Amino acid sequence: MNKEELKNLLSNVADGSVSVGDALVKFKAAPFEDMGFAKPDYHRAVRQGIAEVIYGAGKTPEQIVSIANKLLESGQKTVLITRMSKEAAEYAKEHGLDFTYYEVGHIGIAGEMPKPDTDTSIVIATGGTSDIPVAEEAALTAEALGNRVNRLYDVGVSGIHRLLAHSEEIMRAKVIIAIAGMEGALASVVGGLADCPVIAVPTSVGYGAAFGGVAALLSMLNSCASGVSVVNIDNGFGAGYLASMINHI
Amino acid sequence: MNKEELKNLLSNVADGSVSVGDALVKFKAAPFEDMGFAKPDYHRAVRQGIAEVIYGAGKTPEQIVSIANKLLESGQKTVLITRMSKEAAEYAKEHGLDFTYYEVGHIGIAGEMPKPDTDTSIVIATGGTSDIPVAEEAALTAEALGNRVNRLYDVGVSGIHRLLAHSEEIMRAKVIIAIAGMEGALASVVGGLADCPVIAVPTSVGYGAAFGGVAALLSMLNSCASGVSVVNIDNGFGAGYLASMINHI
Amino acid sequence: MNKEELKNLLSNVADGSVSVGDALVKFKAAPFEDMGFAKPDYHRAVRQGIAEVIYGAGKTPEQIVSIANKLLESGQKTVLITRMSKEAAEYAKEHGLDFTYYEVGHIGIAGEMPKPDTDTSIVIATGGTSDIPVAEEAALTAEALGNRVNRLYDVGVSGIHRLLAHSEEIMRAKVIIAIAGMEGALASVVGGLADCPVIAVPTSVGYGAAFGGVAALLSMLNSCASGVSVVNIDNGFGAGYLASMINHI
Amino acid sequence: MNKEELKNLLSNVADGSVSVGDALVKFKAAPFEDMGFAKPDYHRAVRQGIAEVIYGAGKTPEQIVSIANKLLESGQKTVLITRMSKEAAEYAKEHGLDFTYYEVGHIGIAGEMPKPDTDTSIVIATGGTSDIPVAEEAALTAEALGNRVNRLYDVGVSGIHRLLAHSEEIMRAKVIIAIAGMEGALASVVGGLADCPVIAVPTSVGYGAAFGGVAALLSMLNSCASGVSVVNIDNGFGAGYLASMINHI
Amino acid sequence: MNKEELKNLLSNVADGSVSVGDALVKFKAAPFEDMGFAKPDYHRAVRQGIAEVIYGAGKTPEQIVSIANKLLESGQKTVLITRMSKEAAEYAKEHGLDFTYYEVGHIGIAGEMPKPDTDTSIVIATGGTSDIPVAEEAALTAEALGNRVNRLYDVGVSGIHRLLAHSEEIMRAKVIIAIAGMEGALASVVGGLADCPVIAVPTSVGYGAAFGGVAALLSMLNSCASGVSVVNIDNGFGAGYLASMINHI
Amino acid sequence: MNKEELKNLLSNVADGSVSVGDALVKFKAAPFEDMGFAKPDYHRAVRQGIAEVIYGAGKTPEQIVSIANKLLESGQKTVLITRMSKEAAEYAKEHGLDFTYYEVGHIGIAGEMPKPDTDTSIVIATGGTSDIPVAEEAALTAEALGNRVNRLYDVGVSGIHRLLAHSEEIMRAKVIIAIAGMEGALASVVGGLADCPVIAVPTSVGYGAAFGGVAALLSMLNSCASGVSVVNIDNGFGAGYLASMINHI
Amino acid sequence: MNKEELKNLLSNVADGSVSVGDALVKFKAAPFEDMGFAKPDYHRAVRQGIAEVIYGAGKTPEQIVSIANKLLESGQKTVLITRMSKEAAEYAKEHGLDFTYYEVGHIGIAGEMPKPDTDTSIVIATGGTSDIPVAEEAALTAEALGNRVNRLYDVGVSGIHRLLAHSEEIMRAKVIIAIAGMEGALASVVGGLADCPVIAVPTSVGYGAAFGGVAALLSMLNSCASGVSVVNIDNGFGAGYLASMINHI
Amino acid sequence: MNKEELKNLLSNVADGSVSVGDALVKFKAAPFEDMGFAKPDYHRAVRQGIAEVIYGAGKTPEQIVSIANKLLESGQKTVLITRMSKEAAEYAKEHGLDFTYYEVGHIGIAGEMPKPDTDTSIVIATGGTSDIPVAEEAALTAEALGNRVNRLYDVGVSGIHRLLAHSEEIMRAKVIIAIAGMEGALASVVGGLADCPVIAVPTSVGYGAAFGGVAALLSMLNSCASGVSVVNIDNGFGAGYLASMINHI
Repeated sequence: MNKEELKNLLSNVADGSVSVGDALVKFKAAPFEDMGFAKPDYHRAVRQGIAEVIYGAGKTPEQIVSIANKLLESGQKTVLITRMSKEAAEYAKEHGLDFTYYEVGHIGIAGEMPKPDTDTSIVIATGGTSDIPVAEEAALTAEALGNRVNRLYDVGVSGIHRLLAHSEEIMRAKVIIAIAGMEGALASVVGGLADCPVIAVPTSVGYGAAFGGVAALLSMLNSCASGVSVVNIDNGFGAGYLASMINHI
Repeated sequence: MNKEELKNLLSNVADGSVSVGDALVKFKAAPFEDMGFAKPDYHRAVRQGIAEVIYGAGKTPEQIVSIANKLLESGQKTVLITRMSKEAAEYAKEHGLDFTYYEVGHIGIAGEMPKPDTDTSIVIATGGTSDIPVAEEAALTAEALGNRVNRLYDVGVSGIHRLLAHSEEIMRAKVIIAIAGMEGALASVVGGLADCPVIAVPTSVGYGAAFGGVAALLSMLNSCASGVSVVNIDNGFGAGYLASMINHI
Repeated sequence: MNKEELKNLLSNVADGSVSVGDALVKFKAAPFEDMGFAKPDYHRAVRQGIAEVIYGAGKTPEQIVSIANKLLESGQKTVLITRMSKEAAEYAKEHGLDFTYYEVGHIGIAGEMPKPDTDTSIVIATGGTSDIPVAEEAALTAEALGNRVNRLYDVGVSGIHRLLAHSEEIMRAKVIIAIAGMEGALASVVGGLADCPVIAVPTSVGYGAAFGGVAALLSMLNSCASGVSVVNIDNGFGAGYLASMINHI
Repeated sequence: MNKEELKNLLSNVADGSVSVGDALVKFKAAPFEDMGFAKPDYHRAVRQGIAEVIYGAGKTPEQIVSIANKLLESGQKTVLITRMSKEAAEYAKEHGLDFTYYEVGHIGIAGEMPKPDTDTSIVIATGGTSDIPVAEEAALTAEALGNRVNRLYDVGVSGIHRLLAHSEEIMRAKVIIAIAGMEGALASVVGGLADCPVIAVPTSVGYGAAFGGVAALLSMLNSCASGVSVVNIDNGFGAGYLASMINHI
Repeated sequence: MNKEELKNLLSNVADGSVSVGDALVKFKAAPFEDMGFAKPDYHRAVRQGIAEVIYGAGKTPEQIVSIANKLLESGQKTVLITRMSKEAAEYAKEHGLDFTYYEVGHIGIAGEMPKPDTDTSIVIATGGTSDIPVAEEAALTAEALGNRVNRLYDVGVSGIHRLLAHSEEIMRAKVIIAIAGMEGALASVVGGLADCPVIAVPTSVGYGAAFGGVAALLSMLNSCASGVSVVNIDNGFGAGYLASMINHI
Repeated sequence: MNKEELKNLLSNVADGSVSVGDALVKFKAAPFEDMGFAKPDYHRAVRQGIAEVIYGAGKTPEQIVSIANKLLESGQKTVLITRMSKEAAEYAKEHGLDFTYYEVGHIGIAGEMPKPDTDTSIVIATGGTSDIPVAEEAALTAEALGNRVNRLYDVGVSGIHRLLAHSEEIMRAKVIIAIAGMEGALASVVGGLADCPVIAVPTSVGYGAAFGGVAALLSMLNSCASGVSVVNIDNGFGAGYLASMINHI
Repeated sequence: MNKEELKNLLSNVADGSVSVGDALVKFKAAPFEDMGFAKPDYHRAVRQGIAEVIYGAGKTPEQIVSIANKLLESGQKTVLITRMSKEAAEYAKEHGLDFTYYEVGHIGIAGEMPKPDTDTSIVIATGGTSDIPVAEEAALTAEALGNRVNRLYDVGVSGIHRLLAHSEEIMRAKVIIAIAGMEGALASVVGGLADCPVIAVPTSVGYGAAFGGVAALLSMLNSCASGVSVVNIDNGFGAGYLASMINHI
Repeated sequence: MNKEELKNLLSNVADGSVSVGDALVKFKAAPFEDMGFAKPDYHRAVRQGIAEVIYGAGKTPEQIVSIANKLLESGQKTVLITRMSKEAAEYAKEHGLDFTYYEVGHIGIAGEMPKPDTDTSIVIATGGTSDIPVAEEAALTAEALGNRVNRLYDVGVSGIHRLLAHSEEIMRAKVIIAIAGMEGALASVVGGLADCPVIAVPTSVGYGAAFGGVAALLSMLNSCASGVSVVNIDNGFGAGYLASMINHI
């Protein structure tokens, strides 16, 4: 059932020709397969419009390779593997998985990296260089989902001119991801300059009273700028995924 | 300087015919007026595409009325007043401000409520009846910014069938606001059903280990569903504002 | 003093033929043996109706083997060893302890695994695959105490249809253990569907604002569903033990 | 659809004569009625086996009376109103609601208090006199659900002989609710004595480092006794409800 | 013993002509007077170079007036009363204390406000209008200690141009006090622009995850800008006092 | 059973002529009386060597008077009522309770204040004047238990000479209570000077990051001085009681 | 200057024949020696009545041996080394330090272990076997300071009869140290039974919501028993030191 | 553009001969260079008056060496490398960087250590020996910025005479850095003695309820002494940098 079929089904539900219950049953018919240790959800791509993602943390290299292969076999063109350790990447290479490993962002892309399918782009800004791993997780996620990405790294607010030099890109963006640790002020300044949704990602960069990202998280939740929302600490994937959703509207 | 002029200016910057510095100066020329106790920013509407908002909390009724009148005089058609107490509303009524007061959401709308300027709508769902004040803050904000709103109240996850009865509306939404206190699980379930951005708003509804909304906040930040981002506790305005941004893309 | 004798004693207390003080003395007569580093309590089985448990964390392999052997010699048919590390298991194997090691749940069962002694079963559901170690700790504890266990793994709320596909098993259960990390919403959804006690176990699965299980813990404590109670983070044993108590009523 | 009908329906689902989807539809057919500000769920009694409960906090006296009357009209024999303020009770009295108000526990019982329908009883123990309001909320909830309750108040562990004087009642109970603020040690001591599930309720009684019940909550979550689970701070209702579930098995 | 005498004494200590012990004794000879409920320290002015301050919170109006009069009698020209409630001010007026009351900053100045005794000035910037009470506490403290103050209010980072319009004043300041609630990002941006010490004051302005100033406090402690230090939440007095110390170097 | 009888009983237990169980029964024979809302423990004086205490917080004036009278009738010479509100004191006066009310410490002493029964005295030091209510709670508790008290108020560490002026009293004390809010440093400095147990009492005095006494509590728990232990925030009674125990050794 | 000389000096101060300043100077004359990395305080033994202690954590084995030798040379008969790692102990052995290493408590005693110099003894009770390292730190500290110690290990409240079996020892103690992790309830139960000061030591034993000892710490601070005070988490040394102070009164 | 040129530029702005925008542009012309992974800011020395600093944590040895060389080539005479690991230092040595490594403070100084350029000095005091690494980070930072430093180590408040022996140095200082872990009381005592700004640095030294420096942080934020401000936990660099700013006024 592709997205068109899904829309038809829902239209039928709307005009009463199909009951909600029946629709649910049809929809649920083949949504997941029990692999013992996991129930990969082949329909998520249908329901949510994107490729399947394997969250690599807490999975063995064997499990990652096995799920990735299953997804590729089921017709998935791009499989995004997040939080993939170097060890898992080496294992996957040795066991013949067709994929590219991006070490900084701990991302693996099995299958092919898609071409951008929109003209607009996602701006990803970081406060410092230590935030780049999270930024790359976001950027590669967005690219794997068919987006153009504009990277603005190390433009933290303690040297505000570095950020202002990019004012135009910020004012023109369709959606922005602002990534910062320590005091997380980047989100507020970007939010004040921008005219589009800003997704703030606190990072665990910092020490002492940074409390592993809590200071940045609280700062971003309390942003005095409008249009800013927040995802979990270090959640580059979540930000890239959501930005892609917005960029594809 | 309206939005078109701003775009021209930025294009000139892009092709080099105007320097960044000059552009900033032009833009900054008249952006705010010093009223002593506040610097209302008449250009924000230009920069961010919406009407000016008065955050009523911590302002005296006199200040609210005075700012609202100034904004109306400066040509603003709709002025949104959030966190407006009943006392402030009564004062404003007595002093001739032309506005409507929505008590549940603590919202005042001075000037006229605009017609929806998009075909799509924003779904606003709440976990319980106690979350309705926050939901109304979000809904009226969205309506004041020209959006249609679809209210789904009291569809919390402890009676999952109440939510499932609205599956279609959720699957068809362009953007959803999920509002819940206590354990805040609504955001995850909605996020799993939806195919669009979900803005989660934790509320301070609950007692004991709800810690004034912290339990719901953490729950939403850790949502296992993709496409979910979070705003501050009880921040209905922020959610409505961001949802409007997305709905107008 | 077996359970029958205990009941007789208590009846005598009830009818006044034995004083409370005397009863306590009789009961306390032989309840524990001082092994220097621990006081195993042979009567707990009598008082609480189950086999003795060795909490393996913080004990040396030598201590575990020595206590297990003492318990087996004292007539215990099943000795449950929780939080048993792989190293401890290997040591125990090498030193001739008669037991089976379940690596995922870090559980050792010395003596024999009992047959289920009830017709009803305990449903154990997890939000994701990373919660399985805690779930297996609960499941094996319950089985060691004579229960049937029905495992529903990876049925988290972000794909609610995976859970709904098991609605019947949930509605028919006598007691359910709901295990989840991250936002812990599973407990509320299960609690809303079920007609029986739900024991919620937050897990330390997650990152960032999951705070090692605190987000899930708070979520579960604030569950909007009735009939839900909570045990400590990652406390699979405690949940299995309590579920067995309820299942044996 | 009563419980028998529900069971038949589910059996049909189990043998394949009715699909899951159709079953859900049938079940969902009349489950709630939209009153604008709330969706009372008349089927919850069916699904969860008890009378409907009105959570009075955050509802106006008018809403409470209106919902209570609707539930009584729909055939409910007992309607439990929790967190009912004295003001709401007075309003309800003046507006002719047929109910009894229990001030200490802030509980209203509309309709008739049912006769106990089991022979066993629920023991409710408190650490001090200040915990009694929470205990009464639990006790009246349990009684409204058809249970016998055995109240043991002010038996805190700092005078352990007061608790030991009730050893028999504790050892014979089918389920126990242990309610304490401050350091919350009562749950562990009761859990060590008892042979049945213990539901621990931390209360907000205390000052300073009690942090509104957090100290007791953490203490109870970390109880070294097995068979203890915990509900939210001051959640007497939740404890009474869960205890009733267990007592009715 | 005035400052010169103190310096002589210390020189004598340094060259060995007076022992440390004797010096301490001389210094301690008359440092405080026991008023029963307080020990005002007349020498603090000597030791720390400024007028005595009465911390008004937690003192009765009677106590404030009595201490203020004693200090004026002992030769103090300016007595600064902080956290003085309107009630205390009215009482003091009625009982003849010669003072001026500044309501916004909750400050009373008994005696005369001194002339500035330095050419340089202290810049005090706030993020919003709600931070003004704390800013006035700082400003009046600084003025009472002989400083010129340059107030830049409502220049928060969400409209960065409002702050940049004051770049020169910031770059030329000798010391700056940056006051902000919510996400507290002002301190970092100011710290990045400035070439002098920045004293950051978090305020309790905000709601939800602002946690009464904790978000701003953490943000400021983690400022990525150098030269920023932090005082307690809402501690306008402490910031004004420290700024005066630095301005008088 | 007085203390002598208790000792005899325990000796009999020690030589085996009385069993532990029998001893407990004898001891438990009359230890408390059920007043419905409380179980006053007349034997506590025997077991712990002091007069009975009524914790006034959370008790109605009626309950306080009723318990106090019962205790006086049962032979208690001194009844200490802590956390007694002014309203309760007025009620008690009007209803004829023979007692003295100390408003600052919120203490009532029914019966007679005993003469000191030791030659040594307890030093009670506070950091500031705002800590005096807690100090008086401690001081009056100690006096009611037969101790001499030496009050050193307002000797906080920010003016260390005020404390050093009392070095001798501190070095000679048998036990010291150090009471401070804000940063709570007094305990460490006193602990470094003293040669006896120091009981530290954090108070809720302070604002902002004092977090209602948490800053002082943590400071005191981490004291770098030996011989310091800590009681709950604002727990003057607990400190006075413990100091009396030590002073009576 | 020994203790007698110190007393004489202070008497002279008291009768005015020596000024406070002179006394301080005399006392301070030789109190510490600068070793570059530390200033050992040879007079502390005089001032506080006990042997010098070396806090081993954060010191290199070389530093420990060097300080210990200096102290032995200066006439110290017993030098207590706490938090001494096995590596440091081995280094010290190899480099000829005359000492005994107690591995469980991570304690080294250089010089000779003193004979008990009091008839009374200190009771040290632990909740479980995992608390023994902290208990041994306390016990060896107390023994090094000349006390008899009575060890009651593994008497936690979940099997209350194990503790009650020692009721006499508890009722007869001069001072008790109660050590427990997890929920820390031992302190309250012991405090209720005992007639003497109870020093509570929370330990970091536990997992999940034990938060490294915070649950036990809060529990102990909120103990409903009187006479209980608390030291830092895992601070066996502090408890042993304070208990020795009290036992030597 | 050196500092003189900058001042001229700003004067021109002040008299209107140059617009703010043009000034910003001139200033921004060459402020940073994009090295891919970082944007070193060569103008910071101009703007903030000091040498460039490389924050070594989270940078590879290669990156450190490469940035340091670039800065030296651009004319920087002193390059301060903070948080430089021993491994990075060894790598830098092997790759020919001209620098000195100070292991205790984890500081590298490339180029030459400047001569002090002021007569006054900065006092750096620590509570214990474990705080020395943070103190050396502060001290070497200050020395690299041209300051004289007076080190007072191990003068914690538990032996107040050690600190008082340095009273003169404290009373004469121009600025003081007070560094302490555990309870952090040093800042308050120093603040009470001193007549100059005190920069407090909490350290993560301690265990248990020290919570990695939080206890000291809160203590310092709540200091009852005036003139005290606080930087992040373990932030020796920040304190040294700020102290240098003040010392150079």
